[in-house]
Amino acid sequence: MKLPSDLEIASQAPLVPIADIARAAGIPEEHLEPYGRFVAKVNVKARGDLARQPRGKYVVVTAVTPTPLGEGKTATSVGLAQGIAKIGKRSMLALRQPSMGPTFGIKGGAAGAGYAQVIPMESLNLHLTGDFHAVTAAHNLLAAMVDNHIYQGNALNLDPQTVAWRRVMDVNDRALRNVIVGLGEAADGVPRQTGFDITAASEVMVILMLATGLKDLRGRLGRIVVGYTRSGEAVTAEQLRAAGAMAVILKDAINPNLMQTLEHTPALIHAGPFGNIATGNSSVLACQLGIHAAEYLITEAGFGADMGFERFVNVKCRVSGMQPDAAVLVVTVRALKMNSGRHRVVPGRPLPPAMLEENPADVLAGADNLRAHIAIVRSVGVSPVVAINAFPGDHDSEHEVIRQIAREAGARVAVYRGVAGGGEGARELAQAVVEAADEPQDFRYTYDLALPLKAKIEAVATKIYGADGVDYTPEASRALKNFEALGYGEFPVVIAKTHLSISSNPKLRGAPKGWRLPVREVRLAAGAGYVYAICGDMRTMPGLPSHPAAENIDLDEDGNVTGLF
Amino acid sequence: MKLPSDLEIASQAPLVPIADIARAAGIPEEHLEPYGRFVAKVNVKARGDLARQPRGKYVVVTAVTPTPLGEGKTATSVGLAQGIAKIGKRSMLALRQPSMGPTFGIKGGAAGAGYAQVIPMESLNLHLTGDFHAVTAAHNLLAAMVDNHIYQGNALNLDPQTVAWRRVMDVNDRALRNVIVGLGEAADGVPRQTGFDITAASEVMVILMLATGLKDLRGRLGRIVVGYTRSGEAVTAEQLRAAGAMAVILKDAINPNLMQTLEHTPALIHAGPFGNIATGNSSVLACQLGIHAAEYLITEAGFGADMGFERFVNVKCRVSGMQPDAAVLVVTVRALKMNSGRHRVVPGRPLPPAMLEENPADVLAGADNLRAHIAIVRSVGVSPVVAINAFPGDHDSEHEVIRQIAREAGARVAVYRGVAGGGEGARELAQAVVEAADEPQDFRYTYDLALPLKAKIEAVATKIYGADGVDYTPEASRALKNFEALGYGEFPVVIAKTHLSISSNPKLRGAPKGWRLPVREVRLAAGAGYVYAICGDMRTMPGLPSHPAAENIDLDEDGNVTGLF
Repeated sequence: MKLPSDLEIASQAPLVPIADIARAAGIPEEHLEPYGRFVAKVNVKARGDLARQPRGKYVVVTAVTPTPLGEGKTATSVGLAQGIAKIGKRSMLALRQPSMGPTFGIKGGAAGAGYAQVIPMESLNLHLTGDFHAVTAAHNLLAAMVDNHIYQGNALNLDPQTVAWRRVMDVNDRALRNVIVGLGEAADGVPRQTGFDITAASEVMVILMLATGLKDLRGRLGRIVVGYTRSGEAVTAEQLRAAGAMAVILKDAINPNLMQTLEHTPALIHAGPFGNIATGNSSVLACQLGIHAAEYLITEAGFGADMGFERFVNVKCRVSGMQPDAAVLVVTVRALKMNSGRHRVVPGRPLPPAMLEENPADVLAGADNLRAHIAIVRSVGVSPVVAINAFPGDHDSEHEVIRQIAREAGARVAVYRGVAGGGEGARELAQAVVEAADEPQDFRYTYDLALPLKAKIEAVATKIYGADGVDYTPEASRALKNFEALGYGEFPVVIAKTHLSISSNPKLRGAPKGWRLPVREVRLAAGAGYVYAICGDMRTMPGLPSHPAAENIDLDEDGNVTGLF
Repeated sequence: MKLPSDLEIASQAPLVPIADIARAAGIPEEHLEPYGRFVAKVNVKARGDLARQPRGKYVVVTAVTPTPLGEGKTATSVGLAQGIAKIGKRSMLALRQPSMGPTFGIKGGAAGAGYAQVIPMESLNLHLTGDFHAVTAAHNLLAAMVDNHIYQGNALNLDPQTVAWRRVMDVNDRALRNVIVGLGEAADGVPRQTGFDITAASEVMVILMLATGLKDLRGRLGRIVVGYTRSGEAVTAEQLRAAGAMAVILKDAINPNLMQTLEHTPALIHAGPFGNIATGNSSVLACQLGIHAAEYLITEAGFGADMGFERFVNVKCRVSGMQPDAAVLVVTVRALKMNSGRHRVVPGRPLPPAMLEENPADVLAGADNLRAHIAIVRSVGVSPVVAINAFPGDHDSEHEVIRQIAREAGARVAVYRGVAGGGEGARELAQAVVEAADEPQDFRYTYDLALPLKAKIEAVATKIYGADGVDYTPEASRALKNFEALGYGEFPVVIAKTHLSISSNPKLRGAPKGWRLPVREVRLAAGAGYVYAICGDMRTMPGLPSHPAAENIDLDEDGNVTGLF
């Protein structure tokens, strides 16, 4: 039987007024700001009232190394929240907001899939309440003030060659990756080479994601370093007097957005930082609000456990002060087959037919990847629950192999059938998660913040990725030393590497051994509060394919959206 | 007595729930989409229900040639709407949404002034419901698809040299006026010189302003011409298959935004096209909705009667099918003093002290300007009501001179004191407007659409501006001939000229005679549906001053906005 399309399912689903969803979650109506009938912002001030409700269990959803097509981690998170409701417990979701740009490019939506979706899916995949637009506007106001400062006489003696603050736009536009601005006449500014990133890659997005309140947001914005003086001192947004106006632009964006799943469980959608150079997690505030609004708060961390989950632990949890009670590790038959190294998956193209044949041996050949991710979750003292996200073409024998691998590793395991079955299809997973979350956890960070920056990078490389060590370019070593001298040594680190391998080489499958992490360059995100190490080519502005998804998107005679997915 | 600041007045004003405002205007709740508690979108579908209510009178507010500081036209519109309510009639406002970029530059807000404001003023001057962001996103998606088309092989044979579609951003950023995009490696696109305009200058903004419904919006987007093939054929957004996705991005933006004045009369805020190269009027849809939601619909046209009012008549009214019942002509003592040619006013600086002294002779010396604007309004068969917007430093003798000039010209005249007095201060004006609107009007356009493009430009130049004729560069003549050959000959025309003189020379005061309009260049806005003639230097991307307003804007300890005005 063929499922209806995601858009068909989503657009035919009945919606419950968002005020009812909020009431059921114990969110006081006075803190609710409606945006249409089915979306509302929850004012951060609700935190005080919500704290009087008991604290729920905190469940993070991560995955094995994904194929370029993704393994349905969002759909599993959504279905799990629905499944927890099915077994009689109150659940809350906390997810990132999808980026609008890629909706019109190659990617398609990010609202879940099938009968495990957040709705209204059009709102989710388009503007929602405008938070991304606010990030874009705040980011670009600072950029304009940087160039204006140079043009108006450069009183701070900012060295234009060191300006690292680019501009952003929520669109897939390769032509904006590298640009020269300030051309024309003298009154048109000072020429300078720079570029645009997609909004999800903005440091302002990470600041929105990590802020614990308006005051913290304002402080972080002020600490953004846009470049350096000719004598090497950092120049901040505070010194440019831009941070106050940026905070004003973001004053509504800081409030998480409340939506609902297809089965009317509540979902907080907030912030959408990139998974490669940024944190790849939804906001701290959504989790701080959500943890007191349900018995189980389900949140998703981007990409595999080596990526978003590691940052969830070492960046997000440090800021939020929260600790997970269980981690769901999403695995698919196709991901393990790809990790066998026997198949090649190309983004934008269907899977090779050989991958769809019944072949438990291929699955087993990719088992090292699953084992490594289970070990990553265990390394921070959290109980893993392996969730086999069942696809229509899967075979029982293949699922059985995964169950076997998980059991041998001592992990709970469940087959998740929420895409086809909604919450009903997630009962087995929900039950396993509830059991795991009842166990005592021994949560710990991967490294101590007091360590030198290099030691922190090495801790992630060896303990999480299984590398033998780290190699730095001379520039990277110099920059790390400089960041420590400037007082940024106690920041956590984010490793910007491929998500298609646990290693930094996207071609290495399984659980690569005998390799070293090459750090080409390091950068400072002083407002977000971390140092990030670039290992490989990191695209921060996608391009459009030869036939963008936009070409098929339109309104029908009645004004309904068609072709969105 | 000194008035409290606009922000103090606005932030201390009690707000009525927007649902109550809508109910009082007869807007059915089912067509209301709340955005927070005090702003709502009115779905265009409400037009059907509203049409069952009687049609109100339609009043357009225009002005004499303004000083660079503006003459309080928005404040007069707001106060007039409040004043009409004071004399016992139901009023509705239809205004443009202010651009956010200039809020952080030099301009300050555009919500009215003193006791004649639209609130919440922070919403109005920041994101409101995101319509400007949607215009930005739709515009830039098309830009990305243009560059992507060239990069992916250029199947339509678009000549990159002819691409007129720039990018837009709602920020004051001179460094973006002229840029080169597509630098970097081969995968980073094709290098090309282009630039950014502020969002208010986008053709998409004009399309939003002129659209009579979703289907019309979709059609107009498809007709946008982005450039030409090497053989001279127009290449459209429809051919690039971008228009459907653009319409999807704009599907909520098409619904006008309902707000309230300080005295809780309703205000529809919708679209904000530039006054120089674009139409400078609020949306057709807001007027079509508003005219059945009140006894008097007050709308504002940008700049002087030669600018926004002429386009109101010849572009907006043609599309909306509506005709004004009266025109309010705002005049100030300082505007006529400036028009005497005896004083020099510089933007961003206070008025010269000599202009503040009692001097009815200077006012009289500027009278020709007022007479010319009265004649412009009469030329299209509408009754003018001269509104003297009283400023604190004015003298009665000066007001008396203006009354005299107006009476001699046979126009109604009233002193407007709404900034200091709210609706109470607008009673005299409201009464005059009600009387004028009761007269039979003899509305007519300035030109017939069937005339050649040059004849239409000449009609505006001679009948509205009082020019002796028009001079075209050879390029402009060639382009006009080409537009006619391509089938765009029946479009109305927009003359992009300075607003600081009725002529095209910003230095000429009063009612200049003996001059000819120099048309340097003509451009096509095929989606908006007009041809525009560039006469002089038109800035479409403002810059920031040496001390941007952003430097003083911040959040206080309680998260309230400070320094916005």
